[in-house]
Amino acid sequence: MSDLTHFNGQGRSRMVDVTGKELTHRTASAAGAVAVSAEVLERIRSGTVKKGDVLAVAQVAGIMAAKRCWELIPMCHPLSLTGVDLSFSLEEDPCRVEIRSHVSCDGVTGVEMEALTAVSAAALTIYDMCKAMQKDMVIGPIRLLRKTGGKSGDYCAREEE
Amino acid sequence: MSDLTHFNGQGRSRMVDVTGKELTHRTASAAGAVAVSAEVLERIRSGTVKKGDVLAVAQVAGIMAAKRCWELIPMCHPLSLTGVDLSFSLEEDPCRVEIRSHVSCDGVTGVEMEALTAVSAAALTIYDMCKAMQKDMVIGPIRLLRKTGGKSGDYCAREEE
Amino acid sequence: MSDLTHFNGQGRSRMVDVTGKELTHRTASAAGAVAVSAEVLERIRSGTVKKGDVLAVAQVAGIMAAKRCWELIPMCHPLSLTGVDLSFSLEEDPCRVEIRSHVSCDGVTGVEMEALTAVSAAALTIYDMCKAMQKDMVIGPIRLLRKTGGKSGDYCAREEE
Amino acid sequence: MSDLTHFNGQGRSRMVDVTGKELTHRTASAAGAVAVSAEVLERIRSGTVKKGDVLAVAQVAGIMAAKRCWELIPMCHPLSLTGVDLSFSLEEDPCRVEIRSHVSCDGVTGVEMEALTAVSAAALTIYDMCKAMQKDMVIGPIRLLRKTGGKSGDYCAREEE
Amino acid sequence: MSDLTHFNGQGRSRMVDVTGKELTHRTASAAGAVAVSAEVLERIRSGTVKKGDVLAVAQVAGIMAAKRCWELIPMCHPLSLTGVDLSFSLEEDPCRVEIRSHVSCDGVTGVEMEALTAVSAAALTIYDMCKAMQKDMVIGPIRLLRKTGGKSGDYCAREEE
Amino acid sequence: MSDLTHFNGQGRSRMVDVTGKELTHRTASAAGAVAVSAEVLERIRSGTVKKGDVLAVAQVAGIMAAKRCWELIPMCHPLSLTGVDLSFSLEEDPCRVEIRSHVSCDGVTGVEMEALTAVSAAALTIYDMCKAMQKDMVIGPIRLLRKTGGKSGDYCAREEE
Repeated sequence: MSDLTHFNGQGRSRMVDVTGKELTHRTASAAGAVAVSAEVLERIRSGTVKKGDVLAVAQVAGIMAAKRCWELIPMCHPLSLTGVDLSFSLEEDPCRVEIRSHVSCDGVTGVEMEALTAVSAAALTIYDMCKAMQKDMVIGPIRLLRKTGGKSGDYCAREEE
Repeated sequence: MSDLTHFNGQGRSRMVDVTGKELTHRTASAAGAVAVSAEVLERIRSGTVKKGDVLAVAQVAGIMAAKRCWELIPMCHPLSLTGVDLSFSLEEDPCRVEIRSHVSCDGVTGVEMEALTAVSAAALTIYDMCKAMQKDMVIGPIRLLRKTGGKSGDYCAREEE
Repeated sequence: MSDLTHFNGQGRSRMVDVTGKELTHRTASAAGAVAVSAEVLERIRSGTVKKGDVLAVAQVAGIMAAKRCWELIPMCHPLSLTGVDLSFSLEEDPCRVEIRSHVSCDGVTGVEMEALTAVSAAALTIYDMCKAMQKDMVIGPIRLLRKTGGKSGDYCAREEE
Repeated sequence: MSDLTHFNGQGRSRMVDVTGKELTHRTASAAGAVAVSAEVLERIRSGTVKKGDVLAVAQVAGIMAAKRCWELIPMCHPLSLTGVDLSFSLEEDPCRVEIRSHVSCDGVTGVEMEALTAVSAAALTIYDMCKAMQKDMVIGPIRLLRKTGGKSGDYCAREEE
Repeated sequence: MSDLTHFNGQGRSRMVDVTGKELTHRTASAAGAVAVSAEVLERIRSGTVKKGDVLAVAQVAGIMAAKRCWELIPMCHPLSLTGVDLSFSLEEDPCRVEIRSHVSCDGVTGVEMEALTAVSAAALTIYDMCKAMQKDMVIGPIRLLRKTGGKSGDYCAREEE
Repeated sequence: MSDLTHFNGQGRSRMVDVTGKELTHRTASAAGAVAVSAEVLERIRSGTVKKGDVLAVAQVAGIMAAKRCWELIPMCHPLSLTGVDLSFSLEEDPCRVEIRSHVSCDGVTGVEMEALTAVSAAALTIYDMCKAMQKDMVIGPIRLLRKTGGKSGDYCAREEE
């Protein structure tokens, strides 16, 4: 069985030494959703026009969380991201907010975790701002869509092909 | 349509003023999962015994993230949590790591977001530590199981009844 | 000459011991402005409608910074704020964005610094998002408008009377 | 009208992708002031000699805030600063503390925001440490003095020419 | 053998639930030292007068670290400290900087970790600022001197009796 | 007497400008210990097998603190570490936990402080998790073992030769 690189000889966690890995341009995209009631969906939609924009706050939360990913995820390498963007779409059947993130960096490790963290923080923010209306919102499925750069090659989720 | 309290008269976000809300004991539990391959599941299981414990790291990440929830989620109130715990179970059909969090606090706002954030950070950490083996792991569904305390009363997700 | 309480017997800084100070409801309001060109002012105004809302981002930045004030200002006491709000108005003659913050807390120290920090972070964010258009924007005057609560009594700036 | 780059196609904020921008040496200087009473000015002056040095604390606060600028200002890129310095001068007519910062970095974006943030945090710290003596101190004008490096060329405020 | 409370039924770490513990006034004092060369000691001593005060920076670092102790030490409860102070003395035979911290809080858990963290951060800062002169400085012994408040009663190190 | 570079012309602290210093591969190792009772030592040892692993938590704490060293130590440069690892050994006569860290980076400044900070945070975490059993544990001696890279050349503590 292949071994996880995040452990040292004592069987304890470490931040893997990436010295000598090639510095390349890296990108990653992730996606997720928050399943909401029709009422919440309508409230978010109308808010984007005039009453208070839930998604504007989620956008900022996602971007800021991506930058701090390495503080939250213990074995993540600190990275100086060169770009972070998120987009949202409001979908029905079932009612949900779809979230996508796109992160880029010139570095020695990939930015998958940053993309996934951006989506997670945006989803949590949507939950937070709408929880007075609905408590059984559900977050997920959060998954990696695509990554480019690095020795291990590009990755593209089946749904994205 | 009911209004979201997280917006002010200008239609912009605010951290709601909770002055005067009653100080009560609050608890919240949340759950989530990471869908993994059989190989990753086996690796995590064996790791708990001898080769490096992914879940021990996820545990710490979840606890630390719960404490910093208010830094990540823009409109969350800062809270001095009095307790945070997480537990994991390894399940098959389909293969997945189930995550549960339990958070407590004496305060004027609920701790739902802290419980959900703990689960999210633990899930992201599992993804991070296993991503060398599998990239199409999927995080979710993350949802609130239960909350107690506060004026709006207790909440219990249908699956928990 | 009155002495500053922020220094100890060695003449070095300390975080003043506020044990025993009364726990009361505290509020503070602060104000500030960013002097901008007519072009930037128009861009911000139109953005609030459709092209990208600078002030929505500044709002979130101000709220988040208020919560972390005690991390930034060395001798500030950590406080669990109960409310933070900001508002903006676009003014001419001269062209500027006026910023106001309002912060509340139940605690043993005042929240003046949190209110001033919220305005500062919002002003810096406006500068950041518009600096591609104008580099000689000017931030200030940032000042306390009002504070209530605590033994030293309420304060109201002359302009607010 | 020129467009702000900090917004995406949905009109929401993003951290601009700076991939491909040239890596050059960047510097920026900013300035600001805190208007104080004669009594506070004298207290600060004497403190630098023996009773507790307000400016030593403000110095540290400014440097530490510059390093964390990207955590505070939502669309700022994370940068690994290579140098931060601040200097203060005590002026009369009117009584004030003048603050100057100088920041340097080898990077793909400018360090204007870091220089402005350093001045802001130092000014807030001065306010904090002297507020027991005076509440109507005023912070500002905070402005960029000079920047060098990067494609958009050098900038020098009129007052600095 | 007595059991550690920081572990849950799965044998994994948790932040112990302190709900119901009495809210009392808590204090803790800790001490530590940095063993330095005679040259470094002289440099620090002269610096306190005119050339740059190492200890003023260490003081600020210690205070700020105490406030953030719960972010660094995974199972520490977040606490809103009410006071933090440090003091230094320069000693010979052998040459060293002695550091003492005193921390206070009204809360449900003790502040020993905050006092120890303050000393550690101050010691690390002294090392950092003097390491151009000497690399074999040694930090320690760092230990708790005294704690008061809480159910487990007061504690006083033998050296303090 | 040689001068400390961490001060500017005003005798106040600064983050030294390292522009132009060579970008090289840097490593540093540090060590420290926590002196514990025989009972605590046995508890930690048994915990590594089944009852809750104190050292797994200390490991994560040390790694996360190393990454945030520049936030804690005021004049430290922000660095993007490429690797962090810690190891522990349980020793008797006297009873103690020995801690070693190893940090690497490609950068313009050394990583001594990051290595020392990793050891300090791990030691504090061990203290925190065992303090219910023993309060007079002692942390230290914390010292630099080795550094490589950079203009000033390699360093090796006498004990490591």
